[in-house]
Amino acid sequence: MDEIREEIENQTTQLADLVANQRLVEFKEAFLELHSYEQAQIYYDLAPETRHVVIGILTDDELAEVFDALEEEPAAISELLEEMSPRHATHILNKMFTDNVADILGEMDADEVATYLSLMPKDDANELRQLIEYDDETAGALLATEYLAIDPNYTVGEAMQYVKKEANEAETIFYLYVVDEAEQLVGVVSLRDLLTHPDALPITEITNTRVIAAHPADDQEDVAMTMRDYDFMALPVTDHANHMIGIITIDDIVDVIDEEAASDYSGLAGVDVEIVDISPLAAAKKRLPWLIALLFLGMSTASLISHYEALVSQAAILAVFISLITGTAGNAGTQSLAVAVRKIALNEENPLWKVILTEITIGLLIGVITGVTIFLIVGFWKANWFLGLAIGISMMAAITVANLAGSLIPMGMNKIGVDPAVASGPFISTLSDLTSVLIYFSIAQIFLSNFVNQH
Amino acid sequence: MDEIREEIENQTTQLADLVANQRLVEFKEAFLELHSYEQAQIYYDLAPETRHVVIGILTDDELAEVFDALEEEPAAISELLEEMSPRHATHILNKMFTDNVADILGEMDADEVATYLSLMPKDDANELRQLIEYDDETAGALLATEYLAIDPNYTVGEAMQYVKKEANEAETIFYLYVVDEAEQLVGVVSLRDLLTHPDALPITEITNTRVIAAHPADDQEDVAMTMRDYDFMALPVTDHANHMIGIITIDDIVDVIDEEAASDYSGLAGVDVEIVDISPLAAAKKRLPWLIALLFLGMSTASLISHYEALVSQAAILAVFISLITGTAGNAGTQSLAVAVRKIALNEENPLWKVILTEITIGLLIGVITGVTIFLIVGFWKANWFLGLAIGISMMAAITVANLAGSLIPMGMNKIGVDPAVASGPFISTLSDLTSVLIYFSIAQIFLSNFVNQH
Repeated sequence: MDEIREEIENQTTQLADLVANQRLVEFKEAFLELHSYEQAQIYYDLAPETRHVVIGILTDDELAEVFDALEEEPAAISELLEEMSPRHATHILNKMFTDNVADILGEMDADEVATYLSLMPKDDANELRQLIEYDDETAGALLATEYLAIDPNYTVGEAMQYVKKEANEAETIFYLYVVDEAEQLVGVVSLRDLLTHPDALPITEITNTRVIAAHPADDQEDVAMTMRDYDFMALPVTDHANHMIGIITIDDIVDVIDEEAASDYSGLAGVDVEIVDISPLAAAKKRLPWLIALLFLGMSTASLISHYEALVSQAAILAVFISLITGTAGNAGTQSLAVAVRKIALNEENPLWKVILTEITIGLLIGVITGVTIFLIVGFWKANWFLGLAIGISMMAAITVANLAGSLIPMGMNKIGVDPAVASGPFISTLSDLTSVLIYFSIAQIFLSNFVNQH
Repeated sequence: MDEIREEIENQTTQLADLVANQRLVEFKEAFLELHSYEQAQIYYDLAPETRHVVIGILTDDELAEVFDALEEEPAAISELLEEMSPRHATHILNKMFTDNVADILGEMDADEVATYLSLMPKDDANELRQLIEYDDETAGALLATEYLAIDPNYTVGEAMQYVKKEANEAETIFYLYVVDEAEQLVGVVSLRDLLTHPDALPITEITNTRVIAAHPADDQEDVAMTMRDYDFMALPVTDHANHMIGIITIDDIVDVIDEEAASDYSGLAGVDVEIVDISPLAAAKKRLPWLIALLFLGMSTASLISHYEALVSQAAILAVFISLITGTAGNAGTQSLAVAVRKIALNEENPLWKVILTEITIGLLIGVITGVTIFLIVGFWKANWFLGLAIGISMMAAITVANLAGSLIPMGMNKIGVDPAVASGPFISTLSDLTSVLIYFSIAQIFLSNFVNQH
């Protein structure tokens, strides 16, 4: 389906040519035939001068649709708005869906926001003021207020008339929310049920009163998982007194799932992978903080080995296995970290004692098998079974500890309210280097007499 | 929103009690009030004996809805089907959506599939036979054949009548596909447009003929990205002669995005994190293959160091910095790997020479800063600036190489058709241990006279 992207690029060039040649009628016709996603991509890719002409020939409704479909960062969209007069931009904002407007205003300076809001009708401005307040990554930040609300006294026919009248304004027409005079949500009617029941039937007969609703403070990931499980196209958001506030639609949830996935992946890698198209300097800047922080953690491992320098000069063979033991333990720790982070994300949390017991068991199982393997390899290779034993035992212990750390650290972070997904594989590897080296040299010391330098 | 999960657990107990006490009428009433996702969860959690009773009191339609909502692995669902007679199970399968049926049959033995298909109407069986053939993770594997198809000669009113009649059978009612006598897809009408236009209008007036369709062999990730970008609720699937085959709905795409994310995350961690609730033994079995494979790769690093044993016994201080250099280079390699995998997923591929140039630049930038940092630390700490210089240069070179490897390996895998997401962080770390050690000891040898053992 890559052709689609290529097509958009070709169309951008063609459409820009039409504008350049002042063939504006043709341009407008061709542009409006496109899907709003394509319109948005093209609008964004045009040169500012061309965009200036386009702004002049599209209606406010048409421009609002383009702006609703822009997938860029809110900051980039707000720059596009600044290409228009504040009054014009406000007209566009007024015709956009409130969730998108709130995202954009949320990234602006306070005085810019004040300008736009002062130019809006008072009610709209107040509504937006409230939406901007919701924290990022919550249900509140995702909600739009363009939903279909009907009276509990309606009949199916009346509800249908209402849908027909409002269809073009609503974010979704698949659900109608039944709201009483106190603005409390009493139930949901699906458009499917509306279509398959006779006009005279009271709406109450097909209202589902067992409604699953989100609250504005709910974590967006929880909302996403509920909508995924229930296959909902939209979810109502209510306050704690059950007043209807807005809806969250599935297209926003698709973006949330994508975002959360990229952020978990970034966390595990210890680098933000979400912005890929940047200069080497910017890329280096993004990667350095973790690397330098871990360099200092790595220094503790170095200074620990430094304590054992005398031991190493007596038995240089010990140096041979440092990276093997720290590496393998680090790998096991990374695996256990990833599993733990996933478990937390899926709410599959077990009591602490059970996690510790399980992870020690897994660690010992992996450790014993890996330990025996390396015992045999080293025993045969160096023809020294004591050395093999020292390496094997160290490996086993180091893996068990790394495994436990990989599980407990994200759990602990989650307990104190830090997103466990930021605990990266590199962090666990570097931390487990320290414990592995400590374990290795402590055990090696016991067996020392068996592998002092033979030269 | 965790309460939902708790509620389901409570309801399961309550509903099982009703069955146990033979209060079947009450059970049925309470069960059918639930959302089909909840019904499915409860059905799955019941004891087999209880389920046996439940199968007897639900109609085929009701059971089909439960089975359509089961989120378990296809193999688990097929076990549930085996609790019924083959004839009963076939009736259920016949009433389910074809995409779900194809998933389940796809996991069965050939003779089981043959049994079920032989009990079905011939047309349905043939359709399913074709659906089973599609490869996993393609558009074909996701498609359902329950879509709304209308004639190009319809009016809006006729189309509306058709929607009302078929609404309960279709997977989605939001789009109507306009299909001509040759079964070719000529356009799409949205339910929203249908609702907002007069009955007498010919359907052609509101048909969008510029349709984006997937082909059965398209990768499910490409389909998902297109549906995400365009905010589609469903996407038609056509063959190469533009014959309509089926549709893919957004709820399946949500699952695809989730699955692909978990699989990328698993790849980076070197462990499958998708199945979390398993015994320690099973968990150890899942983690060991990578660990043991990497242990052997780690052995090459050990044997390389072994070549330098004489060097280490002359200058034990060299052992102190092994884990610092291998660790930091491994961390940098993991970061660069993750960025590269993400770039490939986003189709942001650049020509090879450009990637090499960019990554060498990033590697050098990171390497120089990290190298200078460690040069200063070691210089001051050990009061030996030559040692600092050796460590600093080694660090810089090792990071640059690891960085380049982290980018080129996934690109190479992608070129030869292997999913680059399986290249794990642990693999890159372990591989870069080898190159780092080689670089470190080669450079250390040059500076050897400056840090031979002082005792």
